[in-house]
Amino acid sequence: MKRSITAAIIGATGYGGVGAIEILVRHPNVTITSLHAVADVGKRIDEVYPHLTGVCDKVIQPADAPIKADVVFFATPDGVGMKEARTYVKAGSRIIDYSGDFRFNTPALYAQYAARIGKETTHAAEDLLASSVYGLAELHRDEIKNAAIVGNPGCFAVSAILGAAPAVKSGIIDTKTMIFDAKSGVSGAGKKVNPIYHYPHRYEEMNAYKIGKHQHVMEVERELSAAAGSDITVTFTAQVFPVVRGIMTSVYARLNEGVTYEKALDVFKSFYANEPFVTVYGEKESVGNRSVRGSNRCAVWVNVDRRTNTLIILSHIDNLLKGQAGSAVQNMNIMMGLPETEGLTFIGSYP
Amino acid sequence: MKRSITAAIIGATGYGGVGAIEILVRHPNVTITSLHAVADVGKRIDEVYPHLTGVCDKVIQPADAPIKADVVFFATPDGVGMKEARTYVKAGSRIIDYSGDFRFNTPALYAQYAARIGKETTHAAEDLLASSVYGLAELHRDEIKNAAIVGNPGCFAVSAILGAAPAVKSGIIDTKTMIFDAKSGVSGAGKKVNPIYHYPHRYEEMNAYKIGKHQHVMEVERELSAAAGSDITVTFTAQVFPVVRGIMTSVYARLNEGVTYEKALDVFKSFYANEPFVTVYGEKESVGNRSVRGSNRCAVWVNVDRRTNTLIILSHIDNLLKGQAGSAVQNMNIMMGLPETEGLTFIGSYP
Amino acid sequence: MKRSITAAIIGATGYGGVGAIEILVRHPNVTITSLHAVADVGKRIDEVYPHLTGVCDKVIQPADAPIKADVVFFATPDGVGMKEARTYVKAGSRIIDYSGDFRFNTPALYAQYAARIGKETTHAAEDLLASSVYGLAELHRDEIKNAAIVGNPGCFAVSAILGAAPAVKSGIIDTKTMIFDAKSGVSGAGKKVNPIYHYPHRYEEMNAYKIGKHQHVMEVERELSAAAGSDITVTFTAQVFPVVRGIMTSVYARLNEGVTYEKALDVFKSFYANEPFVTVYGEKESVGNRSVRGSNRCAVWVNVDRRTNTLIILSHIDNLLKGQAGSAVQNMNIMMGLPETEGLTFIGSYP
Amino acid sequence: MKRSITAAIIGATGYGGVGAIEILVRHPNVTITSLHAVADVGKRIDEVYPHLTGVCDKVIQPADAPIKADVVFFATPDGVGMKEARTYVKAGSRIIDYSGDFRFNTPALYAQYAARIGKETTHAAEDLLASSVYGLAELHRDEIKNAAIVGNPGCFAVSAILGAAPAVKSGIIDTKTMIFDAKSGVSGAGKKVNPIYHYPHRYEEMNAYKIGKHQHVMEVERELSAAAGSDITVTFTAQVFPVVRGIMTSVYARLNEGVTYEKALDVFKSFYANEPFVTVYGEKESVGNRSVRGSNRCAVWVNVDRRTNTLIILSHIDNLLKGQAGSAVQNMNIMMGLPETEGLTFIGSYP
Repeated sequence: MKRSITAAIIGATGYGGVGAIEILVRHPNVTITSLHAVADVGKRIDEVYPHLTGVCDKVIQPADAPIKADVVFFATPDGVGMKEARTYVKAGSRIIDYSGDFRFNTPALYAQYAARIGKETTHAAEDLLASSVYGLAELHRDEIKNAAIVGNPGCFAVSAILGAAPAVKSGIIDTKTMIFDAKSGVSGAGKKVNPIYHYPHRYEEMNAYKIGKHQHVMEVERELSAAAGSDITVTFTAQVFPVVRGIMTSVYARLNEGVTYEKALDVFKSFYANEPFVTVYGEKESVGNRSVRGSNRCAVWVNVDRRTNTLIILSHIDNLLKGQAGSAVQNMNIMMGLPETEGLTFIGSYP
Repeated sequence: MKRSITAAIIGATGYGGVGAIEILVRHPNVTITSLHAVADVGKRIDEVYPHLTGVCDKVIQPADAPIKADVVFFATPDGVGMKEARTYVKAGSRIIDYSGDFRFNTPALYAQYAARIGKETTHAAEDLLASSVYGLAELHRDEIKNAAIVGNPGCFAVSAILGAAPAVKSGIIDTKTMIFDAKSGVSGAGKKVNPIYHYPHRYEEMNAYKIGKHQHVMEVERELSAAAGSDITVTFTAQVFPVVRGIMTSVYARLNEGVTYEKALDVFKSFYANEPFVTVYGEKESVGNRSVRGSNRCAVWVNVDRRTNTLIILSHIDNLLKGQAGSAVQNMNIMMGLPETEGLTFIGSYP
Repeated sequence: MKRSITAAIIGATGYGGVGAIEILVRHPNVTITSLHAVADVGKRIDEVYPHLTGVCDKVIQPADAPIKADVVFFATPDGVGMKEARTYVKAGSRIIDYSGDFRFNTPALYAQYAARIGKETTHAAEDLLASSVYGLAELHRDEIKNAAIVGNPGCFAVSAILGAAPAVKSGIIDTKTMIFDAKSGVSGAGKKVNPIYHYPHRYEEMNAYKIGKHQHVMEVERELSAAAGSDITVTFTAQVFPVVRGIMTSVYARLNEGVTYEKALDVFKSFYANEPFVTVYGEKESVGNRSVRGSNRCAVWVNVDRRTNTLIILSHIDNLLKGQAGSAVQNMNIMMGLPETEGLTFIGSYP
Repeated sequence: MKRSITAAIIGATGYGGVGAIEILVRHPNVTITSLHAVADVGKRIDEVYPHLTGVCDKVIQPADAPIKADVVFFATPDGVGMKEARTYVKAGSRIIDYSGDFRFNTPALYAQYAARIGKETTHAAEDLLASSVYGLAELHRDEIKNAAIVGNPGCFAVSAILGAAPAVKSGIIDTKTMIFDAKSGVSGAGKKVNPIYHYPHRYEEMNAYKIGKHQHVMEVERELSAAAGSDITVTFTAQVFPVVRGIMTSVYARLNEGVTYEKALDVFKSFYANEPFVTVYGEKESVGNRSVRGSNRCAVWVNVDRRTNTLIILSHIDNLLKGQAGSAVQNMNIMMGLPETEGLTFIGSYP
């Protein structure tokens, strides 16, 4: 089969980069042309990640080595893409950036985000923002098609938005009552060592952090506000648990009067009827992290507590796939005119 | 030192029983007189639990062997205590029952609870209910002192009630908006094997269950209603994560108008000012499961999301200690007129 | 692409069965015709294993439903294949059996094995033994090609034999000094619940079992004796650690006089020079379970303790792949005349 | 009760330091006078280790702050004790050093050890070596009593030596055939972050390291040689598994002709007949890490593979207790004339 599309990955040695490699080496239409990073330059990627032995032996190049590729993945932290993307955009490459650099398409919105993460609030490439699109395919498929730059969504945001958008859009809930209780596996914090992710500390730990202050909230509110057609402010609690891969978000909201469970379920089923990567489950079913781990799927489990008339959605994703590299490749497929599921029908292994 | 109080444990080989043994063998005032169970009868307890080697070598007796003790712990499932307690009450023993059998002091309330767990709704010892007390010391210390029977609280309930009671009692929140997102470690399900707690299944799993239907909700609502002086119905989601010991409950509620963060913190600090086993943390601090694991403490972390005016409490306990055996011994101390912290100042080990 | 080979799996709902499904659904030449089990009959496989959603939705049939397939996988415990294989052999199917039923090609050898595992020592299909072959491709590739029945090797045995065969065959060690210290992940014990694999028990456990008595030793000794041309008896210790997937076996043997490290390494490098699924590592390199987890590879790390003149091999496999379903499909490829690596170039995901 | 002995801990914030604190705060005869460290100076220890809340709130002092204590624990890495101990020895304090600084009582032996760990081979306090004693109580109780300085043993060494000493001393094995296959939990590497102990990397990892080169081998050989009365060189493989606390060492050696299993068991039972912290198990019993985790016990499980006439000992300890802080306090008890078990009868919690 001809692998006609070329791709380069900057930040190839982080979890997001290796996730993209794992997918792209199996993608029938893609050839990886080069891998780039700031560490481990000159090593083969399968020396850094031995599980890639026999699958990818590309030598890691400097981050600023010349790149020629149809798609350039910036699997990099905040602040890199905005500085480096222009060169590749000019050369005609399409950009997919994992960070928050291109998730907000106005300087003002970006400034708010930057303030949350303690970064300089002026965007380094303001003129590019207008041609960037928020990369959640389920909500922005058409815009992604022709975008020069896609701002891949935050992992918590994917889980939260997919778990809430149908309810918001359809108007079945009181949006002022929305609460997101979000739980992430440890890989969400990336490859960088940290005392709180040191194995002996983490193995029996569970904790909340950045309570009410997590930066992914901004994406959630922006997207849900757009869906609602009015400004929405939400309560969001980020938490970490000792699993490695997975995000599970509980979404709570008061149902509007007269909305039944059946109606709520129908809203979700309809909204995602044609989505290849979102599965809606009803209250008689059951779903957990093991159901989506290792896949690009989002599982949305619809429940209603009839005693309090509260919608309870459990939204599950693999944070490194649908929450990161999987969504990135899904976006690439859309941008390149490929079938959206190409290369993304892999599954996890059990147990 | 004279160990003047005698104690017997029925259900000694479950997690709740062994938890009581671990505490009582180090308790300066208590002698364990006999251990009882339906399985492993005739074996020494340190054969069943080798970590007890050198500490307790009592032979396990049948559940119905004669018992003579000041305190009888029913570390047994629902339905046992209500059938067996009468004998020991008559003989003058004080009873501490771990199950739901004596958590509800009217037949009507018990019937509701029994329905939730699929049990016969008629209580087998209705006449004893009036002399039973709900065993959450922080709320019922005075009644526990003289109770013939204490119904030890459910683990989720301890975490939820301690995380919410000050806010409810003080009237700083809109109680109609209360949501409890509760996460338990695996030991909460006890010693009995189950495919969903088989190591290869559970190690990367996280899931919700009995959504809106968990039986511990009844205790939570009963206690909070009493604190509020009016009926409260809450939304409660039970979840399991791959830690072994620990419960972490996020409590959400809309603050009433004009209530500041400082006021909210003060309400919690005041409420627990004299409580030896509850520690209140402010938003500038940080707390996680490792802080309470292995101790009888409850950590209550008070936060407010000012953007949505929502109180966010993170309530952490060790489910097997403050959530079970630790509370049981705390109740025993109160019933026997001992200092409440006697034998309960142990800590976990780190890491 | 034409998927011309048909396969049926008996025991489809165990870990070995689901492992085969995961591989075969991605295998370019294979169509799964039917899945069979004794439990969950009538359910779809993706109801039992939700991670298969979108990938395989076959309904599980009874174990004795009619089967028509080029290859029949018996992913079943000891004692099933020997009773059921005959029917399918007669019908022209090729058989791959996961159990010990067809690992020993004489009744006498089988009887010894059966005695070890406490089974009836008379084989139920003695006449089929002569046409069965031990399914370790690296040692029996040519015989497997035409075998009617392949007895897929035990997981510990794969790791032990591949770690020792080159040294034995080449005569560089004193075979009387061989010691195998073998460590398995928990999935080696399968899907069946057991108190010792209950999550709360296992999470910080490590233990040896069946010391000197594990049944896989017989395969190891038979194969190594054949390689040596003389009878070899080995010391073997089976152990379980709280990982889910993986086997790591330390192989120890005294080097014969004059054998250098370089010579030993060369023996291993030569032996496996053309093997697609065995990678030999030298003492300056480093390898661990994460290197092979999720792949069909065996990593053989060659070390010598020069102070004691002892060969130390660390042999790593994924127990469910190269140790079970991966080897099974490798055998199928050989039997069906396909390239040996077809469908087996998958890798694990990291982290 | 009068707590008449004073103790100071240098290196109080490492795992070895906090382990000593956990024991000493419960020790009936000891008062901790001061805690010292290079990091976190000025913080309270219960801020650094929140699980100590309510138990120890001492402020951490600089490593070089004045110390006045009967016993000074150097819970410090190699190279600290040798430079700092002299001051406290002169002042009359007794020293217990966790590192290798005082495990070898001649400059020549120390030089060999230092070379192994890549340190300067000249000891900084050679004159103190003669008054230092190797702190494995079971072998050196009498010398420890009056030692000015005790070199607390390495964790692997404790497990290996206790598992082998009786066999060596009694002459029942061929000491030239000794192999130690040693497995450690992750806490053995301490508190310092490291990519290989980052949670997402470690959770399904198992690997060997420093094969044939681990520095603890020197202690093992020195002690076993002394027990044998002749020089012994052993094969030793260090490995790490994803448990947090625990060491399990498999000891292999060929039995001398005519030595039966019963004889071997008797040798071990006799050797440890009066030892409070060593339990010998026979082949019909079973033992694992959960049996000793959280206690100061060493479990020695005696097995013989009769087919190969090989002694197989499984030696289990908690690496942070009997392997570190527990042994340290055991040594302190001996040095201070206290009952050896004082303060050391704690147990782990289960599950």
